[in-house]
Amino acid sequence: MAQQLNPKEHKMVILAEGSFGILESKAATVLVRYHTENVVAVIDSEQAGKDVSEIIEIGEGIPVLSSLAEAMELNPTMLAIGIAPPGGELPEPWIAILKEAIGHGLHVMSGLHWFLSDDPQLADLAERHNVTLWDVRKPPADLPIATCKADEVDQTVILTVGSDCRIGKMVTAIELAETARNRGVDAEFCATGQNGIMISGWGIAIDAVVSDFTAGASEEIVLEGATKACDLLIVEGQGSLVHPGYSGVTLSLLHGSMPDAIIFCHQPSRKIVARYTVPLPPVPELIRQYEMLVNPIKPAKVIGIGLNCFDLTEEEALQAVEDTERETGLPATDVIRFGADKLVDAIEKVN
Amino acid sequence: MAQQLNPKEHKMVILAEGSFGILESKAATVLVRYHTENVVAVIDSEQAGKDVSEIIEIGEGIPVLSSLAEAMELNPTMLAIGIAPPGGELPEPWIAILKEAIGHGLHVMSGLHWFLSDDPQLADLAERHNVTLWDVRKPPADLPIATCKADEVDQTVILTVGSDCRIGKMVTAIELAETARNRGVDAEFCATGQNGIMISGWGIAIDAVVSDFTAGASEEIVLEGATKACDLLIVEGQGSLVHPGYSGVTLSLLHGSMPDAIIFCHQPSRKIVARYTVPLPPVPELIRQYEMLVNPIKPAKVIGIGLNCFDLTEEEALQAVEDTERETGLPATDVIRFGADKLVDAIEKVN
Repeated sequence: MAQQLNPKEHKMVILAEGSFGILESKAATVLVRYHTENVVAVIDSEQAGKDVSEIIEIGEGIPVLSSLAEAMELNPTMLAIGIAPPGGELPEPWIAILKEAIGHGLHVMSGLHWFLSDDPQLADLAERHNVTLWDVRKPPADLPIATCKADEVDQTVILTVGSDCRIGKMVTAIELAETARNRGVDAEFCATGQNGIMISGWGIAIDAVVSDFTAGASEEIVLEGATKACDLLIVEGQGSLVHPGYSGVTLSLLHGSMPDAIIFCHQPSRKIVARYTVPLPPVPELIRQYEMLVNPIKPAKVIGIGLNCFDLTEEEALQAVEDTERETGLPATDVIRFGADKLVDAIEKVN
Repeated sequence: MAQQLNPKEHKMVILAEGSFGILESKAATVLVRYHTENVVAVIDSEQAGKDVSEIIEIGEGIPVLSSLAEAMELNPTMLAIGIAPPGGELPEPWIAILKEAIGHGLHVMSGLHWFLSDDPQLADLAERHNVTLWDVRKPPADLPIATCKADEVDQTVILTVGSDCRIGKMVTAIELAETARNRGVDAEFCATGQNGIMISGWGIAIDAVVSDFTAGASEEIVLEGATKACDLLIVEGQGSLVHPGYSGVTLSLLHGSMPDAIIFCHQPSRKIVARYTVPLPPVPELIRQYEMLVNPIKPAKVIGIGLNCFDLTEEEALQAVEDTERETGLPATDVIRFGADKLVDAIEKVN
């Protein structure tokens, strides 16, 4: 889990060729959101000439450029891949851009399933130009089977969970850590997925780990987090207990990270699991599922709700918060719209 | 998932050097139990001269021999690795035995984490002698993310689940399939772990699959099973929902295989998760957990209980069956001691 590159120490150009947008390039969007100062440009020839904020609402002043050659004038030190190719294979034109970047001495950060460092051509080129190819999803070797050691850390451990994928578990975790830090709490965001790792500069993409070792990897993340912050660890959740494909990852993380308390994340407008036909159970039932499952290993309660209201009006969002609080008896907020203070208040009450 | 070797077509010598025993060599024991006719000898120089049945109670007439050279007189066609080395690395003396076997033209079947076919020396030797190195735990390439397709098969799908590892989920599944077949039902045992695969000759060791694809692998197993039997698929369970290390594997299988009904397995004498300090919740609570989790994806009920009473007297075992039936309101049996008929009766009532 050794940090290979610290994104905060680099000037980054983000590759989002042909697909830059809020839904199309999640990695690009979160890098702009959380490393605004470090992003010098986004490459997407189809939208060249625009400002990043015209496309994803954030990142004002960052240009969208048509090529790496143009971006080189801004003196970047790293290329970050901000898109996922359909099917997983890297398109030939992107490979050409990667080679060009390596040739210019740029490090490369990638969250793709397909590992750049396993490609002999790219690996060889990187070695010759003395740059790092950081495949953030590549799991460390020799992960253990979980041993319940995460329970022994002194820090309060909070895990974000949710009703589905892409519902705000990562963003909620980051905002919780930041809000806590602003209050003087020594808090660390613990990344468990590729985008989170690109933000924090460390972590393990647990969905890329062989399933026997996924809970063990979650445990390792908490143990590593404990070396980085004294007071509070906010662990990024993955998937959902009702997700037909990823529920196993979710449960491995729940049991491996051994949280002291849980923040539940949900998008009020979402009624079925995305890309499936599975209806989402009511929030109180989902909360019961998480609590019931964590109970035999280490009892922990859901203490607050993070709502993702990006597709609601201000009035609808306020109503959703009120409805959720009434329905669950727990504090709720949209951390992007209304801040994370309510949830950090709840976390501060955990022993 | 293509079958690489069919154990039923081979004369097998089992390597259990230094460790042959019920608890020490699970693979050897189940191979003797389910391929009795195909096992010509077990190698364990420390117990050479004994009959297999003196050590593991089954396999009368099969000799324990001190070396492969001795076993070669019985004309084996395959060497099966019946033990797991501590730490995962293959001891040097075992490698020498493997090389000797390959040199004699024996195929090799291995359920180890460490893949024989990835070892250049062994792979080269196998190629030269035209034998197959079958690493049963090696996952197939290009596994999908689960898509809920397992729900579409015409067969009744039954999954065995349990309170812990090594509690009888595999044996119960095999006995259910066999008992159903004896009643004229066209049933297939669907293996999800290395020992099960060595018995049935096909399947995927789902705990060796990257966690994103574990439910998808479970789905593939059901779809493959549907090509093999017309009426009934009995899927082997893995782990437990309260196992700190393997619960993710368990949930991936539960959601990926989409069973129509569930058989719950338990060892009445076991009070905590083996190798952990986690107390096992009462059986009715565990049953509620499984049903609650499966419900949002595809409702299925636990319809019977398989008890593993190997460490109880006959009287204690009968008492355990009676207690469990009263406590849960479900039919219970020890399939090895009292047969699987009660549970097959329950399965026949599933539409």
